[in-house]
Amino acid sequence: MQNFEFYNPVKIVFGKGQIQQIETLVPQRKKSMLLYGGGSIKNNGVYEQVMSALGEREVIEFGGITPNPQYDKLMEAVEIARKEGVEFLLAVGGGSVIDATKFIAAAINFDGDPWEMLSEHKRTPKVLPFGAVLTLPATGSEMNCFSVVSRGVDKLGFGGDPRLFAQFSILDPSVTYTLSERQLGNGVVDAFVHTIEQYLTYPANTPLQDRFAEGILQTLIEEGPKVIHVKDHYESRANIMWSATMALNGVIGAGAVHDWSTHMIGHELTALYGIDHARTLAVVLPSLLRVQKDVKKDKLLQFARRVWNVQATDADKAIEEGILLTEDFFNSLGVPTRLGVYKVKEEDIETIVQSLRKHIPANLGENKDIDDEKVQKILKLAL
Amino acid sequence: MQNFEFYNPVKIVFGKGQIQQIETLVPQRKKSMLLYGGGSIKNNGVYEQVMSALGEREVIEFGGITPNPQYDKLMEAVEIARKEGVEFLLAVGGGSVIDATKFIAAAINFDGDPWEMLSEHKRTPKVLPFGAVLTLPATGSEMNCFSVVSRGVDKLGFGGDPRLFAQFSILDPSVTYTLSERQLGNGVVDAFVHTIEQYLTYPANTPLQDRFAEGILQTLIEEGPKVIHVKDHYESRANIMWSATMALNGVIGAGAVHDWSTHMIGHELTALYGIDHARTLAVVLPSLLRVQKDVKKDKLLQFARRVWNVQATDADKAIEEGILLTEDFFNSLGVPTRLGVYKVKEEDIETIVQSLRKHIPANLGENKDIDDEKVQKILKLAL
Repeated sequence: MQNFEFYNPVKIVFGKGQIQQIETLVPQRKKSMLLYGGGSIKNNGVYEQVMSALGEREVIEFGGITPNPQYDKLMEAVEIARKEGVEFLLAVGGGSVIDATKFIAAAINFDGDPWEMLSEHKRTPKVLPFGAVLTLPATGSEMNCFSVVSRGVDKLGFGGDPRLFAQFSILDPSVTYTLSERQLGNGVVDAFVHTIEQYLTYPANTPLQDRFAEGILQTLIEEGPKVIHVKDHYESRANIMWSATMALNGVIGAGAVHDWSTHMIGHELTALYGIDHARTLAVVLPSLLRVQKDVKKDKLLQFARRVWNVQATDADKAIEEGILLTEDFFNSLGVPTRLGVYKVKEEDIETIVQSLRKHIPANLGENKDIDDEKVQKILKLAL
Repeated sequence: MQNFEFYNPVKIVFGKGQIQQIETLVPQRKKSMLLYGGGSIKNNGVYEQVMSALGEREVIEFGGITPNPQYDKLMEAVEIARKEGVEFLLAVGGGSVIDATKFIAAAINFDGDPWEMLSEHKRTPKVLPFGAVLTLPATGSEMNCFSVVSRGVDKLGFGGDPRLFAQFSILDPSVTYTLSERQLGNGVVDAFVHTIEQYLTYPANTPLQDRFAEGILQTLIEEGPKVIHVKDHYESRANIMWSATMALNGVIGAGAVHDWSTHMIGHELTALYGIDHARTLAVVLPSLLRVQKDVKKDKLLQFARRVWNVQATDADKAIEEGILLTEDFFNSLGVPTRLGVYKVKEEDIETIVQSLRKHIPANLGENKDIDDEKVQKILKLAL
């Protein structure tokens, strides 16, 4: 096991009817800004629940935050918040709204161009406190201190700063009933790949972290199809919601060896071609596992045997079966595993590699062995 | 899944050589009190590491805290801390020292007899901040907000108050090399039973929490014998240490149905006969599972199959095999599973039941169906 620090002070309030807890969780006398996305919360009752719980508090609304939240849009919120003297932010939405809220909370007191927090890792002097009401289980942003923001074709992450933890996150699984199959499928795949990135590397004597990761993967495999095919099924919604949070709150990754190259390559596909984040992961992961089969061999075999119950005695066959079952799983959730679906062609690969190198000059992977050539190979295999 | 709140702000600093982090974690200008137990830290190098990291800070020492920390002794520390104006506490030891530190931190500003925080659930106006250096993996106190203190034959718990979380806990697995086989065996059993109490109840649609619990149990089963039989084996020490922390930091219990009756009965055995805490659990648990076999049937079968890989097709046989394997495991760690070893006899049972009822008037168990008669039955079966 590697040495590690673990710190996660987010208060999780989980369950049916819990949005009303906003009443005690949001400060009474601070001017707040309510941030949300495309307006679905106004159609599914969440907005009413939030506003009712906020009561007489002074609240400014800021909607229209898109998936892969855009810097320019977020800077509008920053300007308003500065002008109005906003002191608390409340994100109501999925990972994009929460990521956006983290950026805004950090940008308000940043002197200069806040994009430099991402492009040059500059530190903001102060982060505004914020809370979240999660409406889409997927990214884990509700219980971690990371955020990803886009500016044109640049999609960059920032975080690792404990001031970027939400003070609280409310997770009511019943608010997910109105999500589309596409949103649900994406969410399950996102949580699945978050888990894989912290698990499928090389053995580092982390039996507990491995079993936790395998537990999340098995739960996503069992419960994922239910959220898509069984209407208004509270229990599966609850299990997927909690699994997605646990997949990226630091617990399974503590002391373990991480990869994250699927995400890094995926971010380029989103930035360049507008492909949903989770869909880029579903495309990249299987090919990446095949290209990295040798360096990931031990854990790939463990993954095939423990998560997919693959019986084949030949290691190579078992590994390929595990990858195939993973692809089948993604496809069964309506999430394709081929780049061709998005009309990305072989001649686009060089553009993707160049863009990746602009953003991340170093090699990727747990062994830092994924160079340009390997990225090309992965993308070609994913066509 | 049940509705739940999860909040755990303890900063964990895990790994070899991490005690030196005290230098940045303990406040510089606050008068601190260093609390420890029987003095083993002065023989194994931990004391030197701690003092060196504390540097020039003003520190008062208070040693001699025993297992099952005693109220009278802790009140001596409270008096000194009050007189000296202590502002920060640093616990260096196992669960008893950390539990004691929580009591002292809460008692210093309590007006009246601090025992009433336990006997009458009275609230203290202020809890002193504190940190911990863990030297014995077992109780999980380093990452939860609970504490158990004894006063004569009264052994009572208190907590559930977020002010009773340590600000930080340092977990260096290499400091456990000097523990005795008895301490190590007790620690593994303690963590095992903590996990069972939050898992082996009735099904409540918590597949993720179940798998996390099973992951801890399997890791304890695999790694437990190694810490006892392989000298200075860092990896197994690390895995046991982290498993014991995860067994009682709220993660596996969130949304799950709990029991805790083995602990409640065990506390009486410690208070009346001085039996080590973990040893009382090893005695009570197997008998309790047998007496509660019908109400716990589904989860007992899951436990036998998933944790012990029991193949027997007959459910009753499989369940009994799972319990037998658990007993064998405890015994293999040098922890007996029979009350007779401690010279507790059938005629003592009534005393134990009376003492339990004095402390906890209500029935025990996840269904509140463990009445006096059942407690008698459990203890008789454990003789």
